[in-house]
Amino acid sequence: MRGEFDLIRKYFYQRQMNRNDVHLALGDDCAIVKSPKGVRLVISTDTLVEGTHFVAGANPAWIAHKALASNLSDLAAMGGTPAWCSLALTLPEVHEPWLQSFCDAFFRLADEYDIQLIGGDTTKGPLSISLTVHGFVPEDNVLLRTGAAVGDWVYVTGCLGDSKAGLELILSDRSDAGPDHEILEERHYLSAPRVLAGQALLGIASSAIDISDGLVSDIRHIAKASGVGVSIDVSQLPVSEVLLQYLNDDLTLARQYALTSGEEYELCFTVPQEKTYLLDGISRQTHTQFTCIGQVNSANQIVLHDQGQPLPWTLSGYDHFKVNE
Amino acid sequence: MRGEFDLIRKYFYQRQMNRNDVHLALGDDCAIVKSPKGVRLVISTDTLVEGTHFVAGANPAWIAHKALASNLSDLAAMGGTPAWCSLALTLPEVHEPWLQSFCDAFFRLADEYDIQLIGGDTTKGPLSISLTVHGFVPEDNVLLRTGAAVGDWVYVTGCLGDSKAGLELILSDRSDAGPDHEILEERHYLSAPRVLAGQALLGIASSAIDISDGLVSDIRHIAKASGVGVSIDVSQLPVSEVLLQYLNDDLTLARQYALTSGEEYELCFTVPQEKTYLLDGISRQTHTQFTCIGQVNSANQIVLHDQGQPLPWTLSGYDHFKVNE
Repeated sequence: MRGEFDLIRKYFYQRQMNRNDVHLALGDDCAIVKSPKGVRLVISTDTLVEGTHFVAGANPAWIAHKALASNLSDLAAMGGTPAWCSLALTLPEVHEPWLQSFCDAFFRLADEYDIQLIGGDTTKGPLSISLTVHGFVPEDNVLLRTGAAVGDWVYVTGCLGDSKAGLELILSDRSDAGPDHEILEERHYLSAPRVLAGQALLGIASSAIDISDGLVSDIRHIAKASGVGVSIDVSQLPVSEVLLQYLNDDLTLARQYALTSGEEYELCFTVPQEKTYLLDGISRQTHTQFTCIGQVNSANQIVLHDQGQPLPWTLSGYDHFKVNE
Repeated sequence: MRGEFDLIRKYFYQRQMNRNDVHLALGDDCAIVKSPKGVRLVISTDTLVEGTHFVAGANPAWIAHKALASNLSDLAAMGGTPAWCSLALTLPEVHEPWLQSFCDAFFRLADEYDIQLIGGDTTKGPLSISLTVHGFVPEDNVLLRTGAAVGDWVYVTGCLGDSKAGLELILSDRSDAGPDHEILEERHYLSAPRVLAGQALLGIASSAIDISDGLVSDIRHIAKASGVGVSIDVSQLPVSEVLLQYLNDDLTLARQYALTSGEEYELCFTVPQEKTYLLDGISRQTHTQFTCIGQVNSANQIVLHDQGQPLPWTLSGYDHFKVNE
């Protein structure tokens, strides 16, 4: 087994790009890197476990993409520029086609974001992937959860809800899968981390978070950290055509999906009124859709409404809604 | 389950120390840290998986110690000063006494080496622990595997062989366990990473590695990376009294254990003749035993001898010896 695991290392190390700030990426007890002057390091770790974060037999390319994208999304939420990552890969056995597919997807995304694999560990055991990513933020500028102020407007990137629909399709293993179903499954696994948008929002957004648990859960983190409340106009929630089709054009249900869908890896952020005029330019430059969905208030809670009207449904528990009696 | 895993985070975050170079350790998408001027970062990742690196039901305190110690040992082998670590902890369930014991041991060792837990991830799945540690080395000074030169002397810290004996006892589950057996089991799990010795050897040792696979395997990494050979005088190998007792005073067998025992987390390093006079002082200052076990030569292979005499046994395969016909 030992020899086979040595093979894995070669698999990864052959594919290395070379950043100037990486002095040693492999072949010793540690990697050696140097952070540039005037920056702070932002560091995040995410683990994906078979059976918990993806189903057994899932496409290895999709697993690799999701593992790296979910970590890059954490950097994006701080406005960070990706730099280096370490990969702890645990595999039950060495299966070369699986590895080939995993590596191809991993390095495709890593190259796109100029992040270099500097080290890690390969071990035998139940399938899991743990990544630690490192990025840079300017010394005086970072996106935190703590800066939302009363009156700020609340925005999200992209569309919301597709990931939840995709996960349902993956778990249901439905045989009637059409082309739309494939799109939704891909939306669950193949999100595009909002790295460029996050960087561009430095100095503009007053707070940010990435949507990993679901919009309502994650916005609650901003509200709690900032000591504020948020009102969300559900009529403004951006939902995709493909989600509406999947839900038989039930717009209410689509909005409920948008509010609770996890693992979206879109950004939710707040912007002070006087800086909102900057968003159109950033949206165009970063090819990212921004949608204003609500406003920060002093009420210390998350309130949902439909264009100012109370809703006949409320969130019950972690990700389900109930109709009010 | 989600709520329980939130609990884990609190478990760890309550115990945080606060280093000056850590600006944010928890509660946002990333940790934020700053590396001091004039240093490079050394980064290492190690994963321990139940059933592969420790037996099911192993003492959680010992698992925590081993996970952090094995990572600190990688920093030690580069001469690094520990700074920050990220912990990816995957657990089948939340069992508070287990967590308490794990955390107590983890933070005891972390505090000892002034390393701060800055983030990580807690997930549900088969038990495994993946740690990424960060440390500093001076910009112009690091211990690599590549610097061994012909004529340099080869040293090891501490005693070798106990870890292998300890692992045998753990796996055999022997009921005749005496006090010595407990010592050997602890030697397997509770090694002391040679961080101080590694730092003190900066500028003195020409190469270094930590002994994780076994002395012969690891010294081969130095030889290969440096393009040299090494001769080892097995009569000089440091073996403990408790190992000799365990092996019924079979000195040959004890030396074979010393040559192949993995997960020792001692350092093996080379020193040029003209700097060897410095080792006595470092040994005293760092309370670390150094033993000269051989010399670097140009032969491009690892040769074992007994005070210059050929040995009637040679290494066969990864960790077994055979008697020559």
